[in-house]
Amino acid sequence: EEVSKLLALKAQLKPEEATPQKFTLKTAKGTRDYNAQQMTIRNNVLQKITNVFKKHGAECLDTPVFELKDVLTGKYGEDSKLIYDLKDQGGEILSLRYDLTVPLARYLAMNKINNLKRYHIAKVYRRDNPAMTRGRYREFYQCDYDIAGQFDPMVPDAECLKVVTEILDALDIGRYVLKVNHRRLLDGMFEACGVPADKFRSTCSTVDKLDKMSWDEVRTEMINEKGVTPDAADQIGEYVRLNGGTELVEKLLADEKLSKCKSAVEGLEGIKLLLHFCSLFGIKDKIVFDLSLARGLDYYTGVIYEAVLTQPIKIGNEEQTVGSIAGGGRYDNLVGMFDSKNKQVPCVGVSIGVERIFSVLEAKLAAGEISVRTTEVDVYVASAQKNFLDERMKICAQLWDAGIKTEQSYKKNPKMLTQLQHCEENGIPFAVVLGEAELKRGVVKIRNIITREEVEVPQDDLVQELKVKIDALDRKVMNGPVV
Amino acid sequence: EEVSKLLALKAQLKPEEATPQKFTLKTAKGTRDYNAQQMTIRNNVLQKITNVFKKHGAECLDTPVFELKDVLTGKYGEDSKLIYDLKDQGGEILSLRYDLTVPLARYLAMNKINNLKRYHIAKVYRRDNPAMTRGRYREFYQCDYDIAGQFDPMVPDAECLKVVTEILDALDIGRYVLKVNHRRLLDGMFEACGVPADKFRSTCSTVDKLDKMSWDEVRTEMINEKGVTPDAADQIGEYVRLNGGTELVEKLLADEKLSKCKSAVEGLEGIKLLLHFCSLFGIKDKIVFDLSLARGLDYYTGVIYEAVLTQPIKIGNEEQTVGSIAGGGRYDNLVGMFDSKNKQVPCVGVSIGVERIFSVLEAKLAAGEISVRTTEVDVYVASAQKNFLDERMKICAQLWDAGIKTEQSYKKNPKMLTQLQHCEENGIPFAVVLGEAELKRGVVKIRNIITREEVEVPQDDLVQELKVKIDALDRKVMNGPVV
Repeated sequence: EEVSKLLALKAQLKPEEATPQKFTLKTAKGTRDYNAQQMTIRNNVLQKITNVFKKHGAECLDTPVFELKDVLTGKYGEDSKLIYDLKDQGGEILSLRYDLTVPLARYLAMNKINNLKRYHIAKVYRRDNPAMTRGRYREFYQCDYDIAGQFDPMVPDAECLKVVTEILDALDIGRYVLKVNHRRLLDGMFEACGVPADKFRSTCSTVDKLDKMSWDEVRTEMINEKGVTPDAADQIGEYVRLNGGTELVEKLLADEKLSKCKSAVEGLEGIKLLLHFCSLFGIKDKIVFDLSLARGLDYYTGVIYEAVLTQPIKIGNEEQTVGSIAGGGRYDNLVGMFDSKNKQVPCVGVSIGVERIFSVLEAKLAAGEISVRTTEVDVYVASAQKNFLDERMKICAQLWDAGIKTEQSYKKNPKMLTQLQHCEENGIPFAVVLGEAELKRGVVKIRNIITREEVEVPQDDLVQELKVKIDALDRKVMNGPVV
Repeated sequence: EEVSKLLALKAQLKPEEATPQKFTLKTAKGTRDYNAQQMTIRNNVLQKITNVFKKHGAECLDTPVFELKDVLTGKYGEDSKLIYDLKDQGGEILSLRYDLTVPLARYLAMNKINNLKRYHIAKVYRRDNPAMTRGRYREFYQCDYDIAGQFDPMVPDAECLKVVTEILDALDIGRYVLKVNHRRLLDGMFEACGVPADKFRSTCSTVDKLDKMSWDEVRTEMINEKGVTPDAADQIGEYVRLNGGTELVEKLLADEKLSKCKSAVEGLEGIKLLLHFCSLFGIKDKIVFDLSLARGLDYYTGVIYEAVLTQPIKIGNEEQTVGSIAGGGRYDNLVGMFDSKNKQVPCVGVSIGVERIFSVLEAKLAAGEISVRTTEVDVYVASAQKNFLDERMKICAQLWDAGIKTEQSYKKNPKMLTQLQHCEENGIPFAVVLGEAELKRGVVKIRNIITREEVEVPQDDLVQELKVKIDALDRKVMNGPVV
């Protein structure tokens, strides 16, 4: 408020185009650049995730970074205040996407698609309080996998859980557990405990804070801010302490209060079937039915789940607690909100919290526990003598045209030592070394950067010889510990 | 204006949270979703471009989608009005990036990097008049390759041109020419023709319109809007008609007016050296020195270039004119604008206009000239009988765990015909067919979808057998004409 007044004043005093002036050089709050090492890590992680999505037959989809503001309105409950709006510059009123789920629902309704299995990897935007060291940004990646369509109960839902386990196993970042719960059970539980129906959603978003707050604090918020009676809150408190497997489902199906409540029974039957399918998929030991899991978003209607790392990750001498690393659930009514006839397309999906994974790997990189190579160059074209730029350029073109990843110095007369150092620092395995005497004889030298061995090759055989040498490289050794 | 007033009124009448209401379902003006086929095309094109960038040893970099508004201010000349601003929601004043070049310069200055070869593939935002059928959007991809650092003249510049030719050759979208010119020569030409120095930039941006307007229209704009004298305009008109190769450079170096002007001579010497390097790179037949090439952006200081397709592309019975498909140049003073001590990092780079390439390929797809497969699934797990969901799920898990790309129906009891049709429609080569009799004997059937041949395999050998069959597939035939 104060700031914007000052800025308005400043704008009057000095039109901004007039003097290109210096200011604090930074990225916007809560955002960051990715440098080459970070990009290598990021591309590696995203590739592994994409491979799993493709293994399950998902198609790839993309939507614009901004949507009509109306599309996002009324979808995120209390979190709506975190949406970035664009300035009204005449024309449509736009906002940056807050997740990839609402744009998917808009896409399905707009194109009247009833059936889709898609993945979407893209950045989303939230004006949240950033905690960048823990991987919480205002601009961050989401990797979503969703199945839309009218199918039999819990079949696609169980596959989403299977996808999460395959991804977390592929990324190999430590032990984890997949918590599952059901919105119908939560609703039934609130009903059974005497919470009025119009307070279900807001009570639910308070329960969602149990991973960050104690039960006492949650209880206080329920009573003081959400208008839940102390008695109802205490009854809820009994339930949300429970977690287990199929035996807990059976116990709750026999629970005096819950068994009388239709939606609670529906939720419990759902969880029971889901656990059965998880056991067929061989992932039951990774699943915990947890009544405290609530998830904040308004749009969930059925099963909800969240993957949590169960051990802090050791990086150097520090331990980093990562917590929730994936989450999702069923949202059967979201697409209908966009359809003029309220036609529903049931959906279930999961979102992988890759920023936290990036954070862990970047910390490992900083601690020297992993290393990355940021280019893939195989050959450096060098010269020991002056005035060989023209010859270097011809050789480079020859190698590029043959598909060989090649670099050279952009200086006319680089020093030999500088050129070889560049190869060593960047993990380039071979140098082609040009010299006057050799060129007269129609040969060039190929130098192995690690062994320092040199062989002479006729210029005409250079491409062929290099290809043989490159194919014989042991990439794993060369690129160091794989990320 | 009118619209925003109405919206404000509407907001007073009916708070937007209260009733989730229907509105026109669309993406924001000038933007679009990419469906699975479009994504397949897009990923394919971007992969080919990335391969060339990597072949030249470029590192990958990414920056946030928005920057502090100050970062973008004063960099784009007349085009600044096309920048998308974010709403002031308290905190920093932000704008969406307009290109990837200014964020790169900000990154280099902020991190005090003097030396970098990077590529960046990301969306940028311009509030331009969209012409979506011709691939002109408000949200669109840029694929940039830039070399930053203090090097010898034209060495990195020539490599940028080489990169463009390799990309356009890899994409195989028709014949093209690379126009080159030099900002110092343009300045020298304006000076020699009697344009005052403070009108160089604005005159330049009028010359830039020569690809869309006739010389007469450009001349009129110069005189009426840019304050150039009719005599000066006519002299400029003589020069901008010229194009050619080294012989034209020599002719202009001997030109009475230009040879007296330091910056014109500098520009001509630069072009001469560039053409020499292009000849070493074997790409000289693709280069045309063209004095009408101006490029609108303010920040260029040296060589500028633009790739143009020289033939309309035939799609079905229609011909599509594509025009400019890549462009770039040298910008030696941009990084210094961000440095408090005005320290310069010379840069040169190129941007590939992939949206136009996407448009052409999408038109070819629509005309049936190419086809794409949107998933990579190799195996579908099917059942002819009822109540085989549990068995299907177990087999699916077995195949996924073995890394085999597998799908099944999400229905409890899908019809056999539906399952086989799904395979045919989606190009899935194999089905595993479960039956009661076979399962009792511990076997399953593998069906080749194209030949309809079926073989029985012991369940224990299923993974092994499928892997052999999948490895033997001829992907090119299976996936149809490659995009």
